[in-house]
Amino acid sequence: MKRSAFFISDGTGITAETLGQSLLAQFENITFNKFTRPYIDSIDKARAMVAHINSAAERDGVRPIIFDTIVNRDIRDILATSNGFMIDIFSTFLAPLEQELGDHSSYSVGKSHSIARNAAYMERIEAVNFALDNDDGARTHYYDKADLILVGVSRCGKTPTCLYMAMQFGIRAANYPLTEDDMERLQLPGALQAHRQKLFGLTIDADRLTAIRHERKPNSRYSSFAQCEFEVREVENLFRRENIPNINSTHFSVEEISTRILAQMGVERRFK
Amino acid sequence: MKRSAFFISDGTGITAETLGQSLLAQFENITFNKFTRPYIDSIDKARAMVAHINSAAERDGVRPIIFDTIVNRDIRDILATSNGFMIDIFSTFLAPLEQELGDHSSYSVGKSHSIARNAAYMERIEAVNFALDNDDGARTHYYDKADLILVGVSRCGKTPTCLYMAMQFGIRAANYPLTEDDMERLQLPGALQAHRQKLFGLTIDADRLTAIRHERKPNSRYSSFAQCEFEVREVENLFRRENIPNINSTHFSVEEISTRILAQMGVERRFK
Repeated sequence: MKRSAFFISDGTGITAETLGQSLLAQFENITFNKFTRPYIDSIDKARAMVAHINSAAERDGVRPIIFDTIVNRDIRDILATSNGFMIDIFSTFLAPLEQELGDHSSYSVGKSHSIARNAAYMERIEAVNFALDNDDGARTHYYDKADLILVGVSRCGKTPTCLYMAMQFGIRAANYPLTEDDMERLQLPGALQAHRQKLFGLTIDADRLTAIRHERKPNSRYSSFAQCEFEVREVENLFRRENIPNINSTHFSVEEISTRILAQMGVERRFK
Repeated sequence: MKRSAFFISDGTGITAETLGQSLLAQFENITFNKFTRPYIDSIDKARAMVAHINSAAERDGVRPIIFDTIVNRDIRDILATSNGFMIDIFSTFLAPLEQELGDHSSYSVGKSHSIARNAAYMERIEAVNFALDNDDGARTHYYDKADLILVGVSRCGKTPTCLYMAMQFGIRAANYPLTEDDMERLQLPGALQAHRQKLFGLTIDADRLTAIRHERKPNSRYSSFAQCEFEVREVENLFRRENIPNINSTHFSVEEISTRILAQMGVERRFK
């Protein structure tokens, strides 16, 4: 049986979606049909939303689950008339928080909420630019400005990880690919030696690497299992010899890899 | 007065952090000192966490606010001994959800939660690669595979927006810079004409653009206010003439720009 779930907000919907996804993931036996509906910020949009929810209820034969972070009471009141099971995230937590903090929230006085990170816009853009400019060993003379330098074989996940850390946390992360040359020398490239304390290694299972490289360059030596296995083994040996902290990316999401790196390296995010 | 706030999890901490940040943002009169502490997954780490919380309480002279998404009951029980005001996110919502769904959650039986997005790893990496490969008009012959094509002047925020949509939602977004040449021709570049229904415009206030360009190329014609104002005006005229939906990025975060584009274009995210 499929059951519909809605993440509804008058803003981006990111809070409703993040919390809703986490909660629904706890119910492994149920398949959900998920809809994110941001910017529901008018009476008309709320009424259209109710129609959408009610038709899902009819189709599914069971009422949908609704996670909402809507600030405006009139809009919430309309949503509440729908045939859904409503989890009102802000209402649930703001009353006890107001009591503990001894202050009224913007919510309770009907003001819209803004994303605190807005202020950090320039810092974030700078971090994304830093990741792009210092991607794939393109430049190494800005490593003194880097918070972190990821090292690993080609296509082990360095670039997405650097970009995620830049985007979410404002971290300036460079990355440097370890190629066969570096492996045969059996030592760290010179550009990295001066920044040993910033290095973090990514590794990956050889069969996963083979599959990823195959997408890019099918049937090449580069994407052969033998080559991938050789590179991974050599790089893991290097990490061990040089005492570089590292993580195997195979079974982790980009979120998990990024947050584990920051936790392990003790690097604090730049957005607070 | 500064008050400490902790986002604590045995996983990435993203859910606790996202919800906690949203809730605290409602209290504009209070300044919070925020700490994200992921992977608190052992008794020892929980005890160290309690010490950290208690010393913050002593320093601040008031108990810290704690948002947690910890699954293991033993670890939660230890945290609960701290001198903090605890908002236990999963406990609050999972009981009513279990009742509504008529099923036990993994949480209530003590199993760890996993990120649903893990499965979408390859799709996400592909989307990030697509954004990087089709950045800044570098290639235009893959536009038939694009979900969206962002257009706008240089440095108006196209690249971070494309990368965010790729990372968070698996959307394949290309971007194409509108340069002076295109402006003088007063028409859409040929490469874009065949994909009009995928086009979305980004615009920006001229003074903000001046500041951003100045960071990159100080005191150049490129970063002069006159040049920025001219380009923005011409591009906004083009959007109007050609009926290209668009948004002004000046006062929005990358999250807001991205979610507004998807909502306005009716593009569904690829991660569900």
